[in-house]
Amino acid sequence: MKNRIFILFAIVALSACVPASQLRGTGDLGLVVERASGSVMLIDTSTRASYATVSGLGDLSHATAVYSRDGRYAYVFGRDGGLTKVDMLRARIAARTVQAGNSIGGAISQDGRVIAVANYTPGGVRLFDSATLAPLADIPATYGDGTQRSKVVGIAEAPGERFIFSLYDAGEIWIADCADPRHPVITRFRGVGRQPYDGLITPDGRWYIAGLFGEDGLVLLDLWHPERGVRRILDHYGRGEQRLPVYKMPHLRGWAVAGRLAVLPAVGHHEVLIVDTETWNEAGRIAVHGQPVFAIAQPGGRRVWVNFAFPDNDTVQVIDLPSRSIVHTLKPGRAVLHMEFTPRGEQVWISSRDDNVVRVYDPASFREIAQLKADHPSGILLSARAFATGF
Amino acid sequence: MKNRIFILFAIVALSACVPASQLRGTGDLGLVVERASGSVMLIDTSTRASYATVSGLGDLSHATAVYSRDGRYAYVFGRDGGLTKVDMLRARIAARTVQAGNSIGGAISQDGRVIAVANYTPGGVRLFDSATLAPLADIPATYGDGTQRSKVVGIAEAPGERFIFSLYDAGEIWIADCADPRHPVITRFRGVGRQPYDGLITPDGRWYIAGLFGEDGLVLLDLWHPERGVRRILDHYGRGEQRLPVYKMPHLRGWAVAGRLAVLPAVGHHEVLIVDTETWNEAGRIAVHGQPVFAIAQPGGRRVWVNFAFPDNDTVQVIDLPSRSIVHTLKPGRAVLHMEFTPRGEQVWISSRDDNVVRVYDPASFREIAQLKADHPSGILLSARAFATGF
Repeated sequence: MKNRIFILFAIVALSACVPASQLRGTGDLGLVVERASGSVMLIDTSTRASYATVSGLGDLSHATAVYSRDGRYAYVFGRDGGLTKVDMLRARIAARTVQAGNSIGGAISQDGRVIAVANYTPGGVRLFDSATLAPLADIPATYGDGTQRSKVVGIAEAPGERFIFSLYDAGEIWIADCADPRHPVITRFRGVGRQPYDGLITPDGRWYIAGLFGEDGLVLLDLWHPERGVRRILDHYGRGEQRLPVYKMPHLRGWAVAGRLAVLPAVGHHEVLIVDTETWNEAGRIAVHGQPVFAIAQPGGRRVWVNFAFPDNDTVQVIDLPSRSIVHTLKPGRAVLHMEFTPRGEQVWISSRDDNVVRVYDPASFREIAQLKADHPSGILLSARAFATGF
Repeated sequence: MKNRIFILFAIVALSACVPASQLRGTGDLGLVVERASGSVMLIDTSTRASYATVSGLGDLSHATAVYSRDGRYAYVFGRDGGLTKVDMLRARIAARTVQAGNSIGGAISQDGRVIAVANYTPGGVRLFDSATLAPLADIPATYGDGTQRSKVVGIAEAPGERFIFSLYDAGEIWIADCADPRHPVITRFRGVGRQPYDGLITPDGRWYIAGLFGEDGLVLLDLWHPERGVRRILDHYGRGEQRLPVYKMPHLRGWAVAGRLAVLPAVGHHEVLIVDTETWNEAGRIAVHGQPVFAIAQPGGRRVWVNFAFPDNDTVQVIDLPSRSIVHTLKPGRAVLHMEFTPRGEQVWISSRDDNVVRVYDPASFREIAQLKADHPSGILLSARAFATGF
């Protein structure tokens, strides 16, 4: 009898129970996208090691991720329209939906309740409940006579439960106010320029900037004053009259801000551009090793790390912004696709797709402090993104 | 026999097991210091509720806390020299040491391995292993003939495994390089001014600023160029010739930075000071309701929230920095001691000591969205501090 009672108790207790090893903080977790195998490698920046791999996420080429406000769940946006919620503690898929045919990224709302996904096919943005991935609303990116739908790019979270994004085919920027996520309210900015191909929001959530594929220059929108409309800046920024061969369009999201200066990869040139964020004029250029793809600010704002397009994609350069000089050049491996700093800046993680390796460096000494095997790693996305505006 | 095997299995499994309710992300957790009862109330900003109280932390008047890099543990610095490591998931004390007679705060190193505590008695800084709280090193704040020890104030974490702090009695600023935390290397800046009473580091980790109790003005140190020594700024900042009655010295740590402008509480005046962080000159003043204590930047950098010393400590004012005007006045309760924003800025938590309540507001609408009972609440400290330089 006693045994039976104990057994009953044990069954009940065990069913409400998880292994103690899963009890951990989530602030030092992250994931590495393994694009070839449709999996994500879960990582811990305290041990500088991987602790699990989660598979079954579909086509992860160009995939990215955002995090729940508690840091427990990653929302991974696959290229095939798959939206996967990964439980970082239990190392398994918590929910998954294939919500479109072709998607390019997404964001999570300021309050953490809504996931927005930007889609190429069918063109538009879809909103989902972050707890269940249940659909909340569909925002078709219609333009022209209303039957055409534009590819959506450059989606970013903006303060006030808003998302902002650009319509590639329509040449428009839209703000979706999602305070009521079942009934988003759209503000349209028409005729902003030809083929916006990417967008970013500044870390303070004030400025949205879209790059143009179809013409030179960038488009700037002041979210403190949307009534003032868009403004063109850096009209010489872009592929220009020379129509240079561009091996890979740079990522604006890599945008590095250091004090009032920002650094942008110059399209098609072996240069990065320095931008004064008070005047939005160019404040100089720095020659670099190849065509830059990402220019990432090291926390602290003094240094900017740059990677490059093919054939220079085995190299990373480190720029000291005050002296506008290159202070270090690294060779982290073949096909360096991404770099991510820990939030206080004591580590930088760099993926080398063709060497199947992720390397971790101490940015102060440039010393390699860890090395992880990974299957064609691309994006490295840490849970600290949960705390940053824009993601 | 089967039963016995199951029982054995169950005992082993249960001992390696924790309740599933403890399995959670830590990014939305925080604590509220309950100064009268020596306890901390653990809070969850997703549910906007308290989920536990942990007692036995000693004298928590003027207490503060920092977080481990994974967000799981809070390190609470009590006034009585107690250093307590609180497990936010298991809601219990993980380790505790009474390491001095009288302490004023602390910080955690960039890599998360070292806790530094600033002490009044005996004056100095002590370093501890963040895992075990085992002592690593003692840095006595000696000055004069070497037998005197100064109170230590204004301790901050600085990039490069460093801590920076001020010596109240000695009029010095010290940088402790703790790359080898058993053998910290000290850099001393002597004669910086009379009685530095508090200090702060800017969010980018570049500038350390100490306020002076014994004379007017502030002391500025450029951590990118410590060889240039300290510089005096804002020489009119302070109690001044008039020797105004000061009901509570303002906290510099409340320092709000919005773009290139910073906001400081003016000592003894019903004003906040606007500082241009490129020139370090005053860029204006804004009249407010009382003697300001904290001036806290709302994430996004447009608005600054200010609370006040007695007898105006029932009031909070919200300043719109671009227009330099007060856009809202709140009355959150009697004796408002602290305010803390969630990292993306969609909530602000405000403690009212004498009404035994913590109120949560939506900063966009100023609407109260939650209310929590607490025992004489003071500091509100969220786990997002784990990701910010300086803490």
